[in-house]
Amino acid sequence: MSNLIHRESDGVFVIAATPFAESGALDLESTDRMVDFYLDAGVTGMTILGIMGEAPKLAGDEALTFARRVLDRVAGRVPVIVGVSGAGLDNMARLTGSVMDAGAAGVMVAPPPGLTPEDRQKGYFAQVCKALGGDVPICLQDYPLTLNTWFSVETILQLTVEHPQIVMLKHEDWPGLTKLSRVRAESGTGDVPRLSILTGNAGLFLPMEMARGADGAMTGFAYPEMMVQVVARHKAGDLDGAEDLFDAYLPLVRYEQQLGIGLAIRKQILHRRGVLAAPTVRAPGPKLTDTDLAELTRLMTRLERRLKELG
Amino acid sequence: MSNLIHRESDGVFVIAATPFAESGALDLESTDRMVDFYLDAGVTGMTILGIMGEAPKLAGDEALTFARRVLDRVAGRVPVIVGVSGAGLDNMARLTGSVMDAGAAGVMVAPPPGLTPEDRQKGYFAQVCKALGGDVPICLQDYPLTLNTWFSVETILQLTVEHPQIVMLKHEDWPGLTKLSRVRAESGTGDVPRLSILTGNAGLFLPMEMARGADGAMTGFAYPEMMVQVVARHKAGDLDGAEDLFDAYLPLVRYEQQLGIGLAIRKQILHRRGVLAAPTVRAPGPKLTDTDLAELTRLMTRLERRLKELG
Amino acid sequence: MSNLIHRESDGVFVIAATPFAESGALDLESTDRMVDFYLDAGVTGMTILGIMGEAPKLAGDEALTFARRVLDRVAGRVPVIVGVSGAGLDNMARLTGSVMDAGAAGVMVAPPPGLTPEDRQKGYFAQVCKALGGDVPICLQDYPLTLNTWFSVETILQLTVEHPQIVMLKHEDWPGLTKLSRVRAESGTGDVPRLSILTGNAGLFLPMEMARGADGAMTGFAYPEMMVQVVARHKAGDLDGAEDLFDAYLPLVRYEQQLGIGLAIRKQILHRRGVLAAPTVRAPGPKLTDTDLAELTRLMTRLERRLKELG
Amino acid sequence: MSNLIHRESDGVFVIAATPFAESGALDLESTDRMVDFYLDAGVTGMTILGIMGEAPKLAGDEALTFARRVLDRVAGRVPVIVGVSGAGLDNMARLTGSVMDAGAAGVMVAPPPGLTPEDRQKGYFAQVCKALGGDVPICLQDYPLTLNTWFSVETILQLTVEHPQIVMLKHEDWPGLTKLSRVRAESGTGDVPRLSILTGNAGLFLPMEMARGADGAMTGFAYPEMMVQVVARHKAGDLDGAEDLFDAYLPLVRYEQQLGIGLAIRKQILHRRGVLAAPTVRAPGPKLTDTDLAELTRLMTRLERRLKELG
Repeated sequence: MSNLIHRESDGVFVIAATPFAESGALDLESTDRMVDFYLDAGVTGMTILGIMGEAPKLAGDEALTFARRVLDRVAGRVPVIVGVSGAGLDNMARLTGSVMDAGAAGVMVAPPPGLTPEDRQKGYFAQVCKALGGDVPICLQDYPLTLNTWFSVETILQLTVEHPQIVMLKHEDWPGLTKLSRVRAESGTGDVPRLSILTGNAGLFLPMEMARGADGAMTGFAYPEMMVQVVARHKAGDLDGAEDLFDAYLPLVRYEQQLGIGLAIRKQILHRRGVLAAPTVRAPGPKLTDTDLAELTRLMTRLERRLKELG
Repeated sequence: MSNLIHRESDGVFVIAATPFAESGALDLESTDRMVDFYLDAGVTGMTILGIMGEAPKLAGDEALTFARRVLDRVAGRVPVIVGVSGAGLDNMARLTGSVMDAGAAGVMVAPPPGLTPEDRQKGYFAQVCKALGGDVPICLQDYPLTLNTWFSVETILQLTVEHPQIVMLKHEDWPGLTKLSRVRAESGTGDVPRLSILTGNAGLFLPMEMARGADGAMTGFAYPEMMVQVVARHKAGDLDGAEDLFDAYLPLVRYEQQLGIGLAIRKQILHRRGVLAAPTVRAPGPKLTDTDLAELTRLMTRLERRLKELG
Repeated sequence: MSNLIHRESDGVFVIAATPFAESGALDLESTDRMVDFYLDAGVTGMTILGIMGEAPKLAGDEALTFARRVLDRVAGRVPVIVGVSGAGLDNMARLTGSVMDAGAAGVMVAPPPGLTPEDRQKGYFAQVCKALGGDVPICLQDYPLTLNTWFSVETILQLTVEHPQIVMLKHEDWPGLTKLSRVRAESGTGDVPRLSILTGNAGLFLPMEMARGADGAMTGFAYPEMMVQVVARHKAGDLDGAEDLFDAYLPLVRYEQQLGIGLAIRKQILHRRGVLAAPTVRAPGPKLTDTDLAELTRLMTRLERRLKELG
Repeated sequence: MSNLIHRESDGVFVIAATPFAESGALDLESTDRMVDFYLDAGVTGMTILGIMGEAPKLAGDEALTFARRVLDRVAGRVPVIVGVSGAGLDNMARLTGSVMDAGAAGVMVAPPPGLTPEDRQKGYFAQVCKALGGDVPICLQDYPLTLNTWFSVETILQLTVEHPQIVMLKHEDWPGLTKLSRVRAESGTGDVPRLSILTGNAGLFLPMEMARGADGAMTGFAYPEMMVQVVARHKAGDLDGAEDLFDAYLPLVRYEQQLGIGLAIRKQILHRRGVLAAPTVRAPGPKLTDTDLAELTRLMTRLERRLKELG
């Protein structure tokens, strides 16, 4: 039975952290616990080795060890996407082959930083698709705020038409609500195949994104159960219920969305929630101050209170 | 009686929009109404002709006409800061002279885009201070996300020491909470004079910023009464009350913070609230789609409901 | 008799400096001398108030005074293009109207900084063309190194098709030789009208650019007579003669091409050549050190020697 | 006998290409030939696995294989610096340990892209120095045009004072002549230890850089014999002889300096000169068009003629 990602994939594909021990070594026990935690939260998929997964800080063999551990633990229950973005197509193809063999459901590819103008984007993805092989489903990552590579809607649609293996868009442009509306409206019609659209940006606009036609979320918010419920309520037509729940978490979503330091906050929350043995971010990386930690405690306490109010 | 900004200035210095008629012409009647609206909301100051004030789209005489109209209407009740950032020192000095003569309380100066490395920043502000004249109080604008010019804490402190007329910091780095804590801790001690610190970034972190020692806010959120109350409650020691109120508005704060399109949203809200006759943004500028407008209606409706719940 | 720029405009449109006295005031006598100097050198056109013309540092009335002085002095002998790029369409339209009335041959428009993705570029130029009026010929400036706005060949061609008033391209992408070849090959055929292509980048690749189909140069190298002769020899089929002459000047072309400080070098050379009374660059702006000045003297001396060798 | 780089290292440390076969595989025979070619040209050192060495496109084991092959072939005759820049300190420390064990003379470290403001640069290099170990000599790479990380002179000097293992600067700011003068004047005096300064930027300003106190060049111009002779003549006091020779090559220096495509040009020249079996650049990478190839042929032919004229 195939478990590959496809044009109708939906729900919450949580962006998984990469757990490290205090020493900085890969923490495979926390990895197992994290996988269980995500599955218990009801995610419909996982994405590993993304930008937030500190992939560029792993050695080649570490990346593979980690990917295999996650895939083993998931054991086919949900699709797992592996981030393979990198500077050289040879490296990308090698990693892709290994993880697909190990059971990955597809790979995520972001463009290189600063890839302009857009005709170069088309050339790049033509090379990527050829190098990875036409049977590997690709999630296209559109994340200009970090990558400084900007896709127009036209380019996204054209890539979709030209490369049938591009089946999913990780939408992470910002501000990007109108872009999301346009990709949804202009794909799945005429000659342009449907794209599964999952949204990032720390989930800051999740209710609006669902209303505009997203199929779900792909981000690493440390309370994935919120995202799961928001998406579920939305699909059930309970828009206000979805947004009420979302708004309760919004102070933390907003706090975690801080670029760079957000990863340290996310790992700190996962540590406090008993998922990660240590909140370690590999060097060089952000560190939380005592003030940050106290601020976070306050926000988590306020969240609990608010959730009780909501009942 | 002097009404200049100074090292202890605090409260909410609202960033004022520049009202335009549907034709794109300056709308001076809406200008008067907007000034009254801000004063009624309890702001302790105003900042005009900032980046969000579409200053670069005004002709030289329009900028002066608008500034004089605001200053006349305010009539000294609160200090008014005028943004004078520009490409040439001659133009900046000329505008500064005119608005200070007309009763401005000081000027705001952002560095030119992409001014690196930092020794060039020091050279630039030395030139600016000399050109504007030592008796003109300056609010230093630190807004790297838009300007791509990054100040270190050390540079901010050194500018403060070297130029006594720099009395205020518009803090708008992002993520910038630790930077704010550091500037607060390391100014007003030893050789470094105190700086008034007002925070921007659409107010997204206002409660944390107050807790970390900000003197208030300087941003253009279209519900300035919220900012006034949050700052007041915070100063009165009611931290939870401040944050409860803030969180009620957070969905809209988050919505308005969208870079670029945020200005169109802000003007649309001010239009709906009866302040601006038209929500016009001068071209080239962002336009709201029907979906955006409906989304905004929903958010405003939900805000009203939530405010009722809070009592 | 019309003297507007058109799709066949060619030769050297020198980018004119804006002369200032030591005090920083506009120097209109030097302006006259500069115009005569350029005409004596054999230029076929001039471009004023470009990025190198310090346009953003002029007050509105200064820009107009300078433009009129140049236009009066030129007196229709060659077409004069006026740079009108700016943040607001109203200001651009006003300046355009004034200079076209005063006898300008067209205007040059660069996109705003960081205008991505490319669909926004098309939207922007549609607005610009409408605002300026369809009878004003436009030179499109493609200068990504400074503006961080990147046009693809496809976008340039599409703009040409959609806006008949865009008749000229200032080609200043870098590295941009292949782009130049493509624009030349793909315009003037089928549905895409021919574009006059003049090249910038300080002239560093002028012989290659001519060989690839450029119609001439549009840059401010302080020895415009070299550019005039290189273009003439090239058109006469004397490729080696053109390149021999060019190579003699190349050490200075390379020296003047330094971004930012290049303007101070250019004005210094024009000052030494008796064109500008003072080499003043308006603040904030680059200043030459004593080492720079001595280095320049050495390069100018070596150029004279080399020209003698060439006979 | 130690062969480590030190504060007085000088001459030409050529930036070595990484040779690939047409298939894209590492070409170790060409590697040997290239090492011999560089040594025959008289270089005083080599730098491998730099940005131009396509390091990020190599797998971890490939990088090590290539480094060892070069070190074996060089056999201690000149010092070899290895570029180890990367996203994670663990990976950097591992590679550093391996190549120092294999006989490297030091490592080159560039800052991460976009590392601002400057206090973060100091924090980063403190971490790097600790992770690599205090006995590993470091060449600091200052290359803002590509990395968008800008060092001030003050930061460079401070890093030199705080980390005795930073003994060399690869100067590649642009325009950077005044910066070079300042670093030379302000190091090696008082508390600031001397820095060996080798210059990059494709050698475009080599004569000026030598005159301003550089110790030599570190760039990959495909005619290293020119750089060797220019540096030698300069040290012998024959400034005009140095610059005459340099100017003969300048058309090619200028051609090779084109960012991005310059690597393909460089490899093409090394291929034509019999050094590399194939001019292959790993994907994704620039490709030369037929027009480029003909243009290059013309430039190489003109160079030969000019060298004959010079005798």
